[in-house]
Amino acid sequence: MDQGIVNAELQALQDALRAFAREREWEQFHSPKNLASALSVEAAELLEHFQWMTEEQSHTLGEDKKNEIAEEVADVFLYLLQLSDKLGIDPLEAARRKLEINAAKYPVDLAKGSSKKYSDF
Amino acid sequence: MDQGIVNAELQALQDALRAFAREREWEQFHSPKNLASALSVEAAELLEHFQWMTEEQSHTLGEDKKNEIAEEVADVFLYLLQLSDKLGIDPLEAARRKLEINAAKYPVDLAKGSSKKYSDF
Amino acid sequence: MDQGIVNAELQALQDALRAFAREREWEQFHSPKNLASALSVEAAELLEHFQWMTEEQSHTLGEDKKNEIAEEVADVFLYLLQLSDKLGIDPLEAARRKLEINAAKYPVDLAKGSSKKYSDF
Amino acid sequence: MDQGIVNAELQALQDALRAFAREREWEQFHSPKNLASALSVEAAELLEHFQWMTEEQSHTLGEDKKNEIAEEVADVFLYLLQLSDKLGIDPLEAARRKLEINAAKYPVDLAKGSSKKYSDF
Repeated sequence: MDQGIVNAELQALQDALRAFAREREWEQFHSPKNLASALSVEAAELLEHFQWMTEEQSHTLGEDKKNEIAEEVADVFLYLLQLSDKLGIDPLEAARRKLEINAAKYPVDLAKGSSKKYSDF
Repeated sequence: MDQGIVNAELQALQDALRAFAREREWEQFHSPKNLASALSVEAAELLEHFQWMTEEQSHTLGEDKKNEIAEEVADVFLYLLQLSDKLGIDPLEAARRKLEINAAKYPVDLAKGSSKKYSDF
Repeated sequence: MDQGIVNAELQALQDALRAFAREREWEQFHSPKNLASALSVEAAELLEHFQWMTEEQSHTLGEDKKNEIAEEVADVFLYLLQLSDKLGIDPLEAARRKLEINAAKYPVDLAKGSSKKYSDF
Repeated sequence: MDQGIVNAELQALQDALRAFAREREWEQFHSPKNLASALSVEAAELLEHFQWMTEEQSHTLGEDKKNEIAEEVADVFLYLLQLSDKLGIDPLEAARRKLEINAAKYPVDLAKGSSKKYSDF
């Protein structure tokens, strides 16, 4: 899973986001600190859609609700790409590496059927 | 920018995440509602790294701090992929579409140099 | 419900928090912007305790879990008091006023048994 | 600082919130899990006001902005009171206790002028 190449589609999005911010002279607002805030705010807007639903209901969303949620997913993703771009982090490589770390932290025999945090094993 | 094909690397990550959860019998915890909570919690852990920094400092992180932040970026990304997978949302397509929506909401002449929300133009 | 007097116990906490920050020379970090970030991070730490629970389980917490959660409730409260203090906002007065606004936004006959946002009535 | 009495004004707000929810048949939505989500979403709405400001700007808010922020402070406070009420937590007592814990975690000589987390001392 370790291709080491940058993903062309993510790269294209990051390029588009850079141009978008440059044209609007928004780079002045886009410090990593501020982008991390914005990302967190968007993640909460995504969560807001689910806050009064039962878990059951969250499995069977209507088409309109799903489209609204897809927009929030996109907002989170776009800020994640911008932040990664600013910091020189490859989000795909970081994700692959984290999956390996998680596999070590949560061995199948200890983690099976449990929602405990690894530090509580 | 509208390739319409699913991104192979994102797909590979989603497959790996599915296997990871299945092996640990974690699907019972992974309702969309709960994944949206977890994503939001990880976004806050990412933000925590920046909360007492100045914007200036957030531009010039040391290597150790950058690695810690890359792990949080990864956590956010992994939950975003799991949630998207559960809901049948293609995050790349959603991101591309949202960029177009944003371009319409924030025309260059109105948005230039301004951090106002589109609804306040 | 509109006493117009400052609550002595909240005032005592705000005074203690000011002294705490002053002694540690933390005022330099405590801009309203940063305090709002910290508050949001603590709210997510509170949420983390609940993220994999069912709603049912969240009603019947064990004593240890409840104590951990009380600490997170405290963290949120302490940052809310610090932020309010910095901005000259009386949180009790603001809360009373907001309850009245909510009563107008969510009239009983429209809101009964519904989790809709007022803007969707 | 350990009065051991319940604060009358907080109690009055909690009573009002209970009546508010009962009249609207909202208790069904108000599991501790859901209230913790809602609190976190409101904390993010509070943060949203600050996300593109400089720290400097956050110290000198205009009257309109301050009023908007006071409403978000109120929303966070109201959910904090509702969650505390559901869980039988006294937020004032929890806050006083946490201040003592923090004083032990962050001794003046170690913490002075530093934004490090206690676990990094």
